[in-house]
Amino acid sequence: MLITLTTDFGTSDWFVGTMKGVISGIAPATRIIDITHKVPPGDLVDGAFALSASSPYFPPGTIHVAVVDPGVGSSRRAITLRTQRAIFIGPDNGVLSWAVREEQIEEIRVINNDSWLLNPVSHTFHGRDIFAPVAAHLAAGERFEDAGDPTDDFVRLPWPELSTGDHEVRGEVVYIDRFGNAISNLPADTFHAGLLESGTITVSCGGRPAPLRHCYTDVPLGKPLGIMGSSGLLELAINGDDFAEQNGIEVGSPVVARWEEQG
Amino acid sequence: MLITLTTDFGTSDWFVGTMKGVISGIAPATRIIDITHKVPPGDLVDGAFALSASSPYFPPGTIHVAVVDPGVGSSRRAITLRTQRAIFIGPDNGVLSWAVREEQIEEIRVINNDSWLLNPVSHTFHGRDIFAPVAAHLAAGERFEDAGDPTDDFVRLPWPELSTGDHEVRGEVVYIDRFGNAISNLPADTFHAGLLESGTITVSCGGRPAPLRHCYTDVPLGKPLGIMGSSGLLELAINGDDFAEQNGIEVGSPVVARWEEQG
Amino acid sequence: MLITLTTDFGTSDWFVGTMKGVISGIAPATRIIDITHKVPPGDLVDGAFALSASSPYFPPGTIHVAVVDPGVGSSRRAITLRTQRAIFIGPDNGVLSWAVREEQIEEIRVINNDSWLLNPVSHTFHGRDIFAPVAAHLAAGERFEDAGDPTDDFVRLPWPELSTGDHEVRGEVVYIDRFGNAISNLPADTFHAGLLESGTITVSCGGRPAPLRHCYTDVPLGKPLGIMGSSGLLELAINGDDFAEQNGIEVGSPVVARWEEQG
Repeated sequence: MLITLTTDFGTSDWFVGTMKGVISGIAPATRIIDITHKVPPGDLVDGAFALSASSPYFPPGTIHVAVVDPGVGSSRRAITLRTQRAIFIGPDNGVLSWAVREEQIEEIRVINNDSWLLNPVSHTFHGRDIFAPVAAHLAAGERFEDAGDPTDDFVRLPWPELSTGDHEVRGEVVYIDRFGNAISNLPADTFHAGLLESGTITVSCGGRPAPLRHCYTDVPLGKPLGIMGSSGLLELAINGDDFAEQNGIEVGSPVVARWEEQG
Repeated sequence: MLITLTTDFGTSDWFVGTMKGVISGIAPATRIIDITHKVPPGDLVDGAFALSASSPYFPPGTIHVAVVDPGVGSSRRAITLRTQRAIFIGPDNGVLSWAVREEQIEEIRVINNDSWLLNPVSHTFHGRDIFAPVAAHLAAGERFEDAGDPTDDFVRLPWPELSTGDHEVRGEVVYIDRFGNAISNLPADTFHAGLLESGTITVSCGGRPAPLRHCYTDVPLGKPLGIMGSSGLLELAINGDDFAEQNGIEVGSPVVARWEEQG
Repeated sequence: MLITLTTDFGTSDWFVGTMKGVISGIAPATRIIDITHKVPPGDLVDGAFALSASSPYFPPGTIHVAVVDPGVGSSRRAITLRTQRAIFIGPDNGVLSWAVREEQIEEIRVINNDSWLLNPVSHTFHGRDIFAPVAAHLAAGERFEDAGDPTDDFVRLPWPELSTGDHEVRGEVVYIDRFGNAISNLPADTFHAGLLESGTITVSCGGRPAPLRHCYTDVPLGKPLGIMGSSGLLELAINGDDFAEQNGIEVGSPVVARWEEQG
């Protein structure tokens, strides 16, 4: 079995390693893959996006654990979701919700099977005491329905909406990656195929319009472009530089795509 | 078998990956878990604390390697310790000592079995040339007593002492984590159980007293609190913010816990 | 089988985890080791050096994937090289070349077997769509020659040349590590063995000459020294401090080693 970890724990402390120690004690044969631990502290949207961008590339049956949990120790629930492809485990605060946005959810459980948890459960480190051991028990083949009581709902983060106008679509930046590429909420299917290939789309975000192109090197070094990125979403980038930094872009900055009338 | 790694090597260079390559060549089936590689360069106390906070959560028989080693290549010894629960490997400079502070040590060996080491051993990278291969040989099932000659002593870092007064205990900060929580040397059993629950304890560190509470969200966003942390030690925190940065706290900063007379 | 990853993807995003997900889906039993993901964005020399310094320490048959790929999506080729010891996979831009600089290359293939790649292949994330799945297919035991068409050449980064004078050798800094040690292109065999042991060599880089010594603690804390480093190359260091930062050293800074006439 395969467990992935997405957290805001960073890699300076012992938190992530300790979760893996707990998993290894319960389910020694399980493989563990880090998605990221550099979610900014408490940033649910960042964690939700990272999980949603990566989880489709894991094999069926993977168990995804996401711990971005500013309310740890309070009354927020711990949950696990089962879809046709995967299992998701984390606090019920929305961090899991974008990963299952387009998936059929088969079952939701509130985690409350104390026999699966560390004893005692701390008030500050549920990654170690709740989420890691629950993932490990499931990886070890125990039954999903033994995780806790069934429930019908869970907290969903809103996905920002698009606004469509005359020859334009407006959205916003949802994620900025390590290279400074600004990923927007405009999916490829915003544009019909012929339009995408027409070369007439220009995109703008915090500055002058840039052309939509196929790869970074389609524009000269240092020049901006739009590109349909690897997550299937429109990105704003500079060939060889950091678009977000150069243009003062943040998550939430508006993005506009415009195109010319087709003849 | 399971090997953990705790180092100050960072993750920018190839050092940690190379240690894993060496281990994989000697003991291919061994699983390797990173505790942290972000110990500040040469900071023995930081490394000792990370190892002591995480190692209790690993399964019995785990082999823990810690390499924070400013004296690499000098005459400082390389050692391995065996306790009832685990094996510890590293330079004999104290970095292993807090992890075994409360454990029964069964055997200590000075590492000097050249046939287990890479040949030649460099003067600057004993993580690769000594500590990784020794861990791998032990993980591969070779005998602990073949690591080298027995010894009776090893270097212990002093654990900072508490000072107890009238309705107060004074200690200090021993670690600051990624969230800016300041972990002190005051363990939960400093306070008798009724006192911990009484709500009358206030803690201070670099500023005004803060109440001792159960979880971060027991105080409003932006407000400080004390909390019994996941390592069993009193921590100072701010709900949703960085306590250490906001209050100019460093390792060694004094911490005081005071309480009212019980009726 | 064992796959290593060297990239400039950083660890803040989901990129590396996603590559591992793809590998796990194709070759579930494969072990994956990170060399580094902190290559500065697009820095081929840094990535090439990290791979060349670490790959010799992996067991025979290891599959090394390096993705530093500023030309991703353009017409640059994707290649795989087979040497007597290992397989290397990456863009054909030189990032693989230093690792095989002193190895006999047995076969080179241009990757163009679409059935091994993700479908569709994005224009921006060939780590996920090309390099990870090709590595996984090879790790799963498929034939090297099925990766694509054979080719005779690949892009090699030039290794900076030494210039030898009267009792001196001049070279340059090729890498600066996490500790601020400046690694040069002067290999140990620049000096005959007696000379290395003579204690008469001084090295300089951006400042006053420093003595060549065996280990950091051979000079007082805060003092500079030269040292034959763990990669077999002359390094400039300060005992307990950051040489590169203290002396304003960068990759490419000149390094000189001088010695006295031997009697």
